[in-house]
Amino acid sequence: MSGKYSDDSIMLHLDLYQINMAETYWRDGIHNRKAIFELYFRKSPFGNAYAVYAGLERVLQFIESFGFSESDIEYLRSEGYGEDYLTFLSEMKFTGSIRSMKEGELVFPNEPLLRVEAPLAQAQLVETQLLNIVNYQTLIATKASRIKQVIGDEVAMEFGTRRAHEMDAAVWGTRAAYIGGFSATSNVRAGKMFDLPIAGTHAHAMVQAYRDEYTAFRKYADTHKDCVFLVDTYDTLRSGVPNAIRVAKEYGDKINFIGIRLDSGDLAYLSKKARKMLDEAGFHDAKIVASNDLDEYTIMNLKAQGAKIDVWGIGTKLITAYDQAALGGVYKLVSIEDEDGEMMDTIKISANPEKVTTPGKKRVYRIINNENQHSEGDYIALEHENPEAEEKLKMFHPVHTYISKFVTNFTAKELHEEVVIEGKITCTRPKLPEVQAFARDNMSLLWDEYKRTLNPEEYPVDLSQECWDHKMRCFNEMKEKVKKNNL
Amino acid sequence: MSGKYSDDSIMLHLDLYQINMAETYWRDGIHNRKAIFELYFRKSPFGNAYAVYAGLERVLQFIESFGFSESDIEYLRSEGYGEDYLTFLSEMKFTGSIRSMKEGELVFPNEPLLRVEAPLAQAQLVETQLLNIVNYQTLIATKASRIKQVIGDEVAMEFGTRRAHEMDAAVWGTRAAYIGGFSATSNVRAGKMFDLPIAGTHAHAMVQAYRDEYTAFRKYADTHKDCVFLVDTYDTLRSGVPNAIRVAKEYGDKINFIGIRLDSGDLAYLSKKARKMLDEAGFHDAKIVASNDLDEYTIMNLKAQGAKIDVWGIGTKLITAYDQAALGGVYKLVSIEDEDGEMMDTIKISANPEKVTTPGKKRVYRIINNENQHSEGDYIALEHENPEAEEKLKMFHPVHTYISKFVTNFTAKELHEEVVIEGKITCTRPKLPEVQAFARDNMSLLWDEYKRTLNPEEYPVDLSQECWDHKMRCFNEMKEKVKKNNL
Repeated sequence: MSGKYSDDSIMLHLDLYQINMAETYWRDGIHNRKAIFELYFRKSPFGNAYAVYAGLERVLQFIESFGFSESDIEYLRSEGYGEDYLTFLSEMKFTGSIRSMKEGELVFPNEPLLRVEAPLAQAQLVETQLLNIVNYQTLIATKASRIKQVIGDEVAMEFGTRRAHEMDAAVWGTRAAYIGGFSATSNVRAGKMFDLPIAGTHAHAMVQAYRDEYTAFRKYADTHKDCVFLVDTYDTLRSGVPNAIRVAKEYGDKINFIGIRLDSGDLAYLSKKARKMLDEAGFHDAKIVASNDLDEYTIMNLKAQGAKIDVWGIGTKLITAYDQAALGGVYKLVSIEDEDGEMMDTIKISANPEKVTTPGKKRVYRIINNENQHSEGDYIALEHENPEAEEKLKMFHPVHTYISKFVTNFTAKELHEEVVIEGKITCTRPKLPEVQAFARDNMSLLWDEYKRTLNPEEYPVDLSQECWDHKMRCFNEMKEKVKKNNL
Repeated sequence: MSGKYSDDSIMLHLDLYQINMAETYWRDGIHNRKAIFELYFRKSPFGNAYAVYAGLERVLQFIESFGFSESDIEYLRSEGYGEDYLTFLSEMKFTGSIRSMKEGELVFPNEPLLRVEAPLAQAQLVETQLLNIVNYQTLIATKASRIKQVIGDEVAMEFGTRRAHEMDAAVWGTRAAYIGGFSATSNVRAGKMFDLPIAGTHAHAMVQAYRDEYTAFRKYADTHKDCVFLVDTYDTLRSGVPNAIRVAKEYGDKINFIGIRLDSGDLAYLSKKARKMLDEAGFHDAKIVASNDLDEYTIMNLKAQGAKIDVWGIGTKLITAYDQAALGGVYKLVSIEDEDGEMMDTIKISANPEKVTTPGKKRVYRIINNENQHSEGDYIALEHENPEAEEKLKMFHPVHTYISKFVTNFTAKELHEEVVIEGKITCTRPKLPEVQAFARDNMSLLWDEYKRTLNPEEYPVDLSQECWDHKMRCFNEMKEKVKKNNL
């Protein structure tokens, strides 16, 4: 019942209007004009102050595979596109350049995470894929970071595949969760794809299959060195924990009794009771793993109630970003070459002020106070500006512009790196543990008030004076033009 | 930075514990015992009364591809699994049978959507993939159906790729949306994969690229027959709509002026004003397409306010199932062969009564009143029962069991069909328009009170007396056993 074409490419994983706009550009002969697009979001998810950038690896894989397959072209032919345009598409290569944050970077609203500088048609034809990738992966890395913040030094494991939004979300989502601070995943394919640590022992089904819990635990111990027994199939405290202890005692050194897992019921009460039973049986090192619809809020509560949980298994609420299931990242044209080869900056106006775009080719800097090594905020400047060379920097609130501060003795760290130059990948691709460490280290730059799970302070993301003045000029010009043309 | 293995199979797209349990079964010699698992959810999503089943096509594709690839085995070897077990896995084929609802069937809490009857190890190794697929696709088909209910005869289009949870969610989600009643998608790859109608014209970027809206619309009209102009890049009523009308007039029959699209601002106000402007210009047939974070609630509101919208473009809120981003489907063992080859029914007990499973091999029937052709409810009976042969059927509330009714003059329509027999696909695979029509026709069996978007009545899903008595017997036996073994 699937279509007759092979699903051999993600080049058509885009909104149809991209194909139609590219056709207009090509037939009008402007398809090769250099265009600059920025990808950013307007609001941090979950009421968090920061987000954790993820998705670049998949973006680079897409850029490497850029190009229409034969079946893509055949399909477009069946949709009625002309042969001349199809020839143009079939020969298209990606020749643009991309600057991007590093994966694991802490990112904030309204600053470009990624900037594409490419011939107009090409830049248009990567928009949807980039948004699809970055929106989801950044969302999950951020959710994971929030949860990990609450968990602290204890272990966080990702268990959400069965509730993920289809398969890509499960594997790329758990990779993003690792970037956000998680230690392992239950998804074996993700372990295979990304060299992630994998975890898991047995489910209720095994206990049911043996019908007798004691027998089930013994059979598992007969066949595996590392044992975590799931204790809530019948009755956690009257059957599960006692059977786990019994088997652990009987098998002694023959197994590595890591501990038990609780998957239902009152986790605070049960974990305290189970801890006591394990301790009394001499298993002080046995861990208690807990799972069951956990998120940062339930974990905070369980901790406040003194729950004795050593390892947290997080599924649904993480992998679906349950309380805010989308990051609203957008991809906006900020500059385009005109007929004379000059770059002209563009603006999109909206009735909603937060939707007005900021024109021009820009760079993003993190302004780090040299005295305390904390960040004063992020600073968006036009390409030619050099904030590092300034003695003092005026940073002003991007909405309430009369609120401003001067910063001196600072380092302006540029946040983007060149990742693609003229179609070629130019960046190194760090291993995931490095990416995770980078994300963790970045957190130390932030004052605590930005890390709060509930009602954090808003982190400053400011425009340079020049960038702001330029935006106002473009805005007023466009308003004037609309007025003049008013029909 | 990705792992060193080729991502050439979804066989390892499972939770690690499946691999570990299967090892225990295999080493213990019980891996070939026949096991019966049921897949069901406990609560309808979005407070809806019904859900729309989707995912079977992808399940069948997975069953067809069942088997560990060489790189899967290599990876498991690197994780320390023994050669003997790896040989067993590498030779494994799926030899079980599956009964399933048809895609597009209306389904309800606590009834099996799908039943797997297979050698224990095999049945275990498909659990995670099946849940991942069915949970997401059923969630989205249901959300789409809710939205389509509110939209009525107007056109619903799926525009959510950029906010979907990575790529699989975008394509399989938009297929599910089509099953739920949507007419088209913006995702071209989904069109190619599933032969779905695709839709889309241009974005703000094109207007910005030409900097002048009038020029942009003309250029689009020069290069495309079908034109929908996006009118909110600068100012909807003062610039966008007048420019669209101007170009439509100038081009006359040279284009097919389908209409305009609104993507921001107050859609009720703007659509009414734009409708008036289009009518006054003589474009009575021009459609108004609206998009911007729409869902069933905003659509209901816009309609109540008399918005003049002909085509609804739905993105984020549909494709992410934003207000309830997960369906909690589970996969539970209900029966297993014992050492003597007898099937023994199994139960899982829980402190939460709704989590107690219903043991035994069962069938699901829709009880249709022959007088009015409406459904009286669904009826779950043990395999050997034959409700169709009964004169009158006692249906009682599965929680408040003292509430019951008798039904006479009914048809008991079995809802499952054999889709896989001994590893071979045996069902037909209808084309998507047929699946959509099937879903639509199924709605006519339901009384209106179950179709309400807000606070619908709870649809009865009842156990047969025999099934209920059997459950109670298993429950009490297990309770007794736990008590006796209490350590």
